Amino acid sequence: MESVLKAIESGKDASVTILEELLRIPSISADPDRKGDVQRAAEFLANVLRDSGLPTVEIIPTDGHPIVLGEWCEDPSVPTLLVYGHYDVQPIVDLAEWSMPPFEPQIRDGKIWARGATDDKGQVLAHVLSVAAHLRETGKLPVNVKLLIEGEEEIGSEHLAEFVRTNRDRLACDAIAISDSAMYAPGIPSICIGLRGIAYVEFTVRGPAADLHSGGFGGVIENPAVALAQVLAGLKDPGSGRILVGGFYDGVEEPTDEEKAGWAKLSDPDGRYLAMTGSPQLYGERDRTTLERVWSRPTLDVNGIWGGHTKPGESMTVLPAVASAKVSMRLVKNQRPADVVAKLRSHIEEHLPDTVTLERFVELHGGDPWTSSVDHPAVQAAFRAVEKGFGKPPVPTREGGSIPIIPMFTEILGAPVVLLGFGLGDEGAHGPDEHFDLSNFQAGIRTSAHYLMEFREVAAASKGSA
Amino acid sequence: MESVLKAIESGKDASVTILEELLRIPSISADPDRKGDVQRAAEFLANVLRDSGLPTVEIIPTDGHPIVLGEWCEDPSVPTLLVYGHYDVQPIVDLAEWSMPPFEPQIRDGKIWARGATDDKGQVLAHVLSVAAHLRETGKLPVNVKLLIEGEEEIGSEHLAEFVRTNRDRLACDAIAISDSAMYAPGIPSICIGLRGIAYVEFTVRGPAADLHSGGFGGVIENPAVALAQVLAGLKDPGSGRILVGGFYDGVEEPTDEEKAGWAKLSDPDGRYLAMTGSPQLYGERDRTTLERVWSRPTLDVNGIWGGHTKPGESMTVLPAVASAKVSMRLVKNQRPADVVAKLRSHIEEHLPDTVTLERFVELHGGDPWTSSVDHPAVQAAFRAVEKGFGKPPVPTREGGSIPIIPMFTEILGAPVVLLGFGLGDEGAHGPDEHFDLSNFQAGIRTSAHYLMEFREVAAASKGSA
Repeated sequence: MESVLKAIESGKDASVTILEELLRIPSISADPDRKGDVQRAAEFLANVLRDSGLPTVEIIPTDGHPIVLGEWCEDPSVPTLLVYGHYDVQPIVDLAEWSMPPFEPQIRDGKIWARGATDDKGQVLAHVLSVAAHLRETGKLPVNVKLLIEGEEEIGSEHLAEFVRTNRDRLACDAIAISDSAMYAPGIPSICIGLRGIAYVEFTVRGPAADLHSGGFGGVIENPAVALAQVLAGLKDPGSGRILVGGFYDGVEEPTDEEKAGWAKLSDPDGRYLAMTGSPQLYGERDRTTLERVWSRPTLDVNGIWGGHTKPGESMTVLPAVASAKVSMRLVKNQRPADVVAKLRSHIEEHLPDTVTLERFVELHGGDPWTSSVDHPAVQAAFRAVEKGFGKPPVPTREGGSIPIIPMFTEILGAPVVLLGFGLGDEGAHGPDEHFDLSNFQAGIRTSAHYLMEFREVAAASKGSA
Repeated sequence: MESVLKAIESGKDASVTILEELLRIPSISADPDRKGDVQRAAEFLANVLRDSGLPTVEIIPTDGHPIVLGEWCEDPSVPTLLVYGHYDVQPIVDLAEWSMPPFEPQIRDGKIWARGATDDKGQVLAHVLSVAAHLRETGKLPVNVKLLIEGEEEIGSEHLAEFVRTNRDRLACDAIAISDSAMYAPGIPSICIGLRGIAYVEFTVRGPAADLHSGGFGGVIENPAVALAQVLAGLKDPGSGRILVGGFYDGVEEPTDEEKAGWAKLSDPDGRYLAMTGSPQLYGERDRTTLERVWSRPTLDVNGIWGGHTKPGESMTVLPAVASAKVSMRLVKNQRPADVVAKLRSHIEEHLPDTVTLERFVELHGGDPWTSSVDHPAVQAAFRAVEKGFGKPPVPTREGGSIPIIPMFTEILGAPVVLLGFGLGDEGAHGPDEHFDLSNFQAGIRTSAHYLMEFREVAAASKGSA
């Protein structure tokens, strides 16, 4: 292990170079024009895996973007760890909000800046590079490893579940490690034991058959953008912050007092959220702490809204025919995407005026919420590995985001999921100026290397408890 | 006059050909990339004016798009008519909503289809072609004529007022004729004697400093699109249709009982507005008729709204940093743009939650409301001309739209404005599939030709009454 850690330390610059090369590929899975780039990212990763000494490396096509699978399963006596990550990235919404070109990585202030740095290229590479270090130094791995890296995470992992189901035996494992989440704060390593689910819809409200002149028709024809604003405004009570969709909170589970007490000890979450976001004030449900709001409460957000003429500075006098919105809800234990989507749809249909119609209502994306247990041996091994990798014991936390594939993995492979988050909450995942702290990158590689060692205990523990 | 009308009749096809050529030029004044096309439209028009035999034709540059001025002022003993129109057109918002390419004119069902057909290329050409017919047949015009055709009407006539002020003497006239409005209905010619004003603003609501991940921050950071929806929703009372901006209705004048009684006789406005718009139902202020709502009541519309991720079908989980809206208000007598804009701004500032800021609030465009008098000799001459041109006496109506330059003309030139609308309300001005009825085009040319004759009475009447 000593030599592996030394190799990781001395390979620091080379690691960053590999990350830079991967970040240079604009693998935006949502953009059909980037299909070639997504493929190129898969090929680059496969080459890195091959260079690392993995005996089996495959780029597996799907009906969407390909899956990269690298395997080292040479010792049937040791447990098997599946590492999941993704090499696709979020789109660039507004290039003007970026301080640098998103696909020309720069190193500044000990961070690497580029789209995909923290979500998820940097984090997944930490595992790839720890595997490479083990193989280079010892010619083998402490446990069997299967690296499954997909290219459709940012568009809902459309073809992953089918792949996992079809390749259930090939992917068999004792636990699944995922690094696609954030530490609580710089210098406070953490292990995430809960995630919110998601239900994401898009809908369009239609007034007239076509765009009209707002002078000739304003006041006598409903404005669908106003009707949309009214229905969106009615989804949340501005006073209490409660979501007003009927039955939305049915069965919602509160975190345990013990968990809440742990959160209450974490330093200055309000200050951190204000600093991370630059918002004038925090927001949220009355009588809840910030961490409760983001980690344990369901929410509703407008992710996009559009209608009429949207070019800044132009005064087109249009009464738009349609107005649309993307609305997503984050879910907690006992909420199911299909159920809340049905409730939202009923609410919208009930509250839209008769002067417009709900022309389109599409469920774009859904994922169940997830909670883990700190008592599981694979999680316990992770706590030890993080402590060794970061030099500090990790804190059990939750995240407000969703990784809908986690319940899927658990269901199909029957193995627990362990979330080793190496990112930080303010690293611009899904926003402009995305970056990744390079000291956390190194600590992540070390943690992964330790985890392969600590993971040897898991099968024994599992067998013991079976 | 007989020979002029014959020439108009026999020149029918040639007239349409000229209109087609003008419609082929995509003179979108709002689009900086179309600057060359706007210039080209000006040059084309100037050539048509020259070919018509006008002794003075000039393309006058402004700081924006040029003004075309054609003059025939050969007889100091007759009155002078200024004809105003515009050769610029609205942008194409969504090409997919058009059934044909907007700048490849087609003739179908007795109509010509293209962007700018009714607004305003077809209508302004009616005057140009009647002048040409008079000059060709008689070598002179019944009255002095100044044709002032600008290229910035669709972007607020930015440089027109300055031009008119600077060229006050050159533009001196006894009345101003404008054909940029609609007849009441097919077969019901009308003269518009009232227009609403407009106040148009754009504003941006900011939450966090940059876009955030809606999972990581949803529920603890205000969503500016939701805050925007709430403030927009609060601008109108869905029940009564009243605008809730404090003081908005201050001083608003009701039309006279006589005018309302005239409107009440017009056939089936509700059916017409439903048919024209394809809306599921009409909308508006409680206890008002459709024509009262659109002709005499101030309104508020959202002309554009945008924020977050707006590509249909994609489920980007962004909590947007900003959300923006374009909001315009149509004004009636005694309302002033600057005043209602200030009231709107106060309302928005007062109603936005403290969790967001009003980052930007810009007044893009403003115009006073206008009412004419049916008793003025220039208007009376217009009533006679329309009756002769269309074969039916016109109805005095109003329009819901705004022509902010009208009060400007009246103020600077001290002459009344006469609105000779040859368009129809459902001809897609500002929307997709714009078109212009070719029989109204012909009737418009005849009406204009008659108006030049009837207008001879105006100066005498003016002098008599002076």
